[in-house]
Amino acid sequence: MEKAVFYHAGCPVCINAEDRITELVDRSRFEVEHVHLGRDRGRIAEAEAAGVKSVPALVIGGDVLHINHGASMAEVKG
Amino acid sequence: MEKAVFYHAGCPVCINAEDRITELVDRSRFEVEHVHLGRDRGRIAEAEAAGVKSVPALVIGGDVLHINHGASMAEVKG
Repeated sequence: MEKAVFYHAGCPVCINAEDRITELVDRSRFEVEHVHLGRDRGRIAEAEAAGVKSVPALVIGGDVLHINHGASMAEVKG
Repeated sequence: MEKAVFYHAGCPVCINAEDRITELVDRSRFEVEHVHLGRDRGRIAEAEAAGVKSVPALVIGGDVLHINHGASMAEVKG
């Protein structure tokens, strides 16, 4: 099972993207962890290290897919 | 089988996103059509009508997921 991480901040754009990605993903092959960076602020550094510039974003393997634009990481950090 | 359309313009950002989306999608439930707007210019209007502002983008149901940023539709149109 390959792991992917969906980072978001609870915004409407994030929730819409989350619904669509959850719907699309082949769950027999991928396990998607959902991380709300507004609540789980200890994981902001990890997201930035993975290359996340804005949310919502899906990190899969070494790649970051920024999906639409909800908020920049600067906005997430407040 | 639900249909999704992946619009791209052959750029490196597009190809990377295409690979990842192809990998992620549950192909037992979704059929993804790949449209190269640089080659298939007759479909630019359709993409814009669906809400595509930049490529790569995946249109699924009534939603558009803009995935990273390869080129704006103005750039695609030249």
